[in-house]
Amino acid sequence: MLVFILNAGSSSLKYQLMNPTTKEVLAVGLCERIGIDGILKHEFGEGQKLTLEIPMPTHKEAIELVLKTLVESEGKVINSIDDIDAIGHRAVHGGEEFASSVMVTDKVIAKMKELIPLAPLHNPANIMGMEICQQLMPGKPNVAVFDTAFHQTMPDYAYMYALPHDMYTKHGIRKYGFHGTSHYFVSNEARAMLDKKQNTRIIVCHLGNGSSVSAVLNGKCIDTSMGLTPVQGLMMGTRAGDVGAGAISYMMSRENLTIDQALDVMNKKSGILGISGKSSDLREVLEGMQNGDDKCRLAVDMVAYNIKKYVGAYVAALDGVDALCFTGGIGENAALIREKVCAGLDSMGLVIDPVKNNRRSREARDIATNGSASRIFVIPTNEEFVIANDTFKIVSELQK
Amino acid sequence: MLVFILNAGSSSLKYQLMNPTTKEVLAVGLCERIGIDGILKHEFGEGQKLTLEIPMPTHKEAIELVLKTLVESEGKVINSIDDIDAIGHRAVHGGEEFASSVMVTDKVIAKMKELIPLAPLHNPANIMGMEICQQLMPGKPNVAVFDTAFHQTMPDYAYMYALPHDMYTKHGIRKYGFHGTSHYFVSNEARAMLDKKQNTRIIVCHLGNGSSVSAVLNGKCIDTSMGLTPVQGLMMGTRAGDVGAGAISYMMSRENLTIDQALDVMNKKSGILGISGKSSDLREVLEGMQNGDDKCRLAVDMVAYNIKKYVGAYVAALDGVDALCFTGGIGENAALIREKVCAGLDSMGLVIDPVKNNRRSREARDIATNGSASRIFVIPTNEEFVIANDTFKIVSELQK
Repeated sequence: MLVFILNAGSSSLKYQLMNPTTKEVLAVGLCERIGIDGILKHEFGEGQKLTLEIPMPTHKEAIELVLKTLVESEGKVINSIDDIDAIGHRAVHGGEEFASSVMVTDKVIAKMKELIPLAPLHNPANIMGMEICQQLMPGKPNVAVFDTAFHQTMPDYAYMYALPHDMYTKHGIRKYGFHGTSHYFVSNEARAMLDKKQNTRIIVCHLGNGSSVSAVLNGKCIDTSMGLTPVQGLMMGTRAGDVGAGAISYMMSRENLTIDQALDVMNKKSGILGISGKSSDLREVLEGMQNGDDKCRLAVDMVAYNIKKYVGAYVAALDGVDALCFTGGIGENAALIREKVCAGLDSMGLVIDPVKNNRRSREARDIATNGSASRIFVIPTNEEFVIANDTFKIVSELQK
Repeated sequence: MLVFILNAGSSSLKYQLMNPTTKEVLAVGLCERIGIDGILKHEFGEGQKLTLEIPMPTHKEAIELVLKTLVESEGKVINSIDDIDAIGHRAVHGGEEFASSVMVTDKVIAKMKELIPLAPLHNPANIMGMEICQQLMPGKPNVAVFDTAFHQTMPDYAYMYALPHDMYTKHGIRKYGFHGTSHYFVSNEARAMLDKKQNTRIIVCHLGNGSSVSAVLNGKCIDTSMGLTPVQGLMMGTRAGDVGAGAISYMMSRENLTIDQALDVMNKKSGILGISGKSSDLREVLEGMQNGDDKCRLAVDMVAYNIKKYVGAYVAALDGVDALCFTGGIGENAALIREKVCAGLDSMGLVIDPVKNNRRSREARDIATNGSASRIFVIPTNEEFVIANDTFKIVSELQK
């Protein structure tokens, strides 16, 4: 089976063509600047690359161009659109409606539209991607894989905010969590890597430009750091993470900001960028720190300390930990962050091996000392595989 | 030495008359409804009580009445105002200016006025109390004891929000923490109760109508749960504690609230009251839970789970824990909350003894099992003693 994986953003579109059974990726690419002008970056074969600058007034032209590229360009990887068996869509907000991936139907799209207020930037783009695929490839099954679904197993005392209760019943105000596909993939891999199969207590640190932590008990998420929206939790590239309500209100009054402007600051000008004043890219900030820039040192210390506190909180929530996992661009590559997070977690049974931690690899690996009571894993995430595989499973089930 | 301890709020006034050397309390009382009508509740001797309903148009009349009551009422405990050696004031916000208690001077009052934007309700009342005492008892030393002072030892990576860095340099937006006097007193008592004297790692849960947790390493605070204002951190009687910025903004747009109205909801209508819909008083909510009210059950579960996560975070920050301490009205009395917080912290070396936990006492005590690697203490707080003792020390130093 070949699955076309689509991740539609407001002005961009990521895609892959994957065989979920063999995990073979035939092509991977990205359309950018949709509605502005349009660039397609397409990779295929053994790392071959094709870049096309062609106007893409809307997502429809972008998807048409991607399909054409797959079938009849220099970067062609299939003979016909008919070789695509199904489409798997990354969808951001599934609210409380979707606790797992689903076949896209009119009802599903209607539900996703109801959820637009919770994800005003993401859900409309996701829906657009689904509708265009239905139009361009009529009859082919579309599956929606939600970023929030994996976190739907959280108990009420973990997902509720301590606001008046009717904020939840009237408006659905609660923690939903994001990056669920990654947390699911990594925690599942970690379970397979552990000797024990029962009562598995796993903490996943998904650290990229957006970052979140989750606590996973026996394969089920019991808590996560992001909330109603992704601005909550860890300090990120440009997002502030946890900030007190009093501090938000004080910033608004001192800087004469509306709440939307304050949220914009907290989403786009805070985090690693805001503290370092240099970059949202941790690599540049680590370099700045090595060159003696104290704001870069502070940003790095804050990133690590924030993660460490969430790890401690989730060890408490899980009554111990069998594996602490790092994934995402930072989690997989920034050995210094892993080292700083784990420093002083010996009392929780987590002892990092500095040699293993500094060894570079693209494989899933254990970086704890042999004597460490609990494991510390670095596991490259693969959200596209989860999307392709969920699509494969749902479509196969249907065809039975 | 006799110290008159004053805690001036916006429409109330708490006081004690204490000998800090013997810890003897001669009188304790409260003026309420200042500016409305006026009630004085005065306790003296062996639990004798006096209540006076006398108009108190301003704090000046209230303090005059208290002094008169101490000297010439039925509740008289001293012969003359001259028997009072010094006045110790509880002051809320010391910003970064005050890392310890200080003699009240014109300069100190001027600094406290500069800090009013950070504590618009509390600092003006505190300053008023100081100025009235200077006026009514000229020549007597006044000492200010700040709620924020004990937390000034936090490292920058713990006190900074991940907002743009100039929010800190321009406006002082950072975590300050509160209840410092209680966290200091209880952590200090706990250190004395421990066998080890070096590398003491203590977590204090101050749980009252307002609640906060602190991590104390070798007697110095390294982190605390409240922030720029007391609305952050744990879920409290009526305060929401930690809420994501996206959730605040979403609530504002759905309910058509300004940020001040939203803060009012988060300060006065949230927390235990908001979730239970019943009461801000945990005792009533525990009763509701026992009667099968599921919102009460949820409120209790959330209170305990929030505290548990902070405990885990601070065990990580401290690289272990020697003593977990409970204090404040809830911390000292609610055995079920202590039990729920400690359930599942075995992996951190904290094992509660159910029999010891359920034994009622007004003494400081250890409620961990004998085999528990770390101690769990219940320690009645005594902020007034800290205020009296700091006043005594500063005044004695001056008289040398």
